[in-house]
Amino acid sequence: MSSSEIAKKYVALVKENKHEECLETLFSKDAVSVEAGAPPGMDRTAKGLDAIRAKGKWWTDNHTVHKAEVYGPYPHDDRFAVRFVYDITHKPSGKRLSMDEVGLFTIENGKIAREEFFYGQD
Amino acid sequence: MSSSEIAKKYVALVKENKHEECLETLFSKDAVSVEAGAPPGMDRTAKGLDAIRAKGKWWTDNHTVHKAEVYGPYPHDDRFAVRFVYDITHKPSGKRLSMDEVGLFTIENGKIAREEFFYGQD
Repeated sequence: MSSSEIAKKYVALVKENKHEECLETLFSKDAVSVEAGAPPGMDRTAKGLDAIRAKGKWWTDNHTVHKAEVYGPYPHDDRFAVRFVYDITHKPSGKRLSMDEVGLFTIENGKIAREEFFYGQD
Repeated sequence: MSSSEIAKKYVALVKENKHEECLETLFSKDAVSVEAGAPPGMDRTAKGLDAIRAKGKWWTDNHTVHKAEVYGPYPHDDRFAVRFVYDITHKPSGKRLSMDEVGLFTIENGKIAREEFFYGQD
């Protein structure tokens, strides 16, 4: 797949909530995922598909999603951006919040090798 | 200014349409601006403030802006993203179109040293 096709496929799979298929088919096994800030008790950086899966499981276990909007992809050579706007409840606190962030994805050798999430922390 | 302050100031100035003040106060003199695709007859890359100003003038001269929405900033260490959604008319063709893109800004030594624009071309 070209970088443009990978970007479109990524957005299509995320919109269909097919996160495992997305990781399995589009990501490098050594892919790195970096948050703008560290989730409580976790590292900012997850290295490798298993660590990314574990972060995804933590997120799913701890949040109820009421509404998810995904905008993009926005390509630029071998990178693309995606904007995520989520209306969620953080299960442990019961707090409902809006999550608005941008993901930046870097493709190497036909696979997503790096994902970085951009968002404010104040 | 911290990277977070630069990001917020950038968005505030762009929302107020203060592009020259934005370049003058927040950008490095050697800043580089890279488009996802080359505008007709132009390079994808503009190097230095004068080249960035010239690109901005070309854009302003050739487009009428009906509505501009700016979302962000979305920070991540010394970078931040901004989403731009513009409703514009391309003056030469009279064609009205929606422009939806993400800008990625890189800060070095307290100034924006690089801006890259992400958008689809098909």
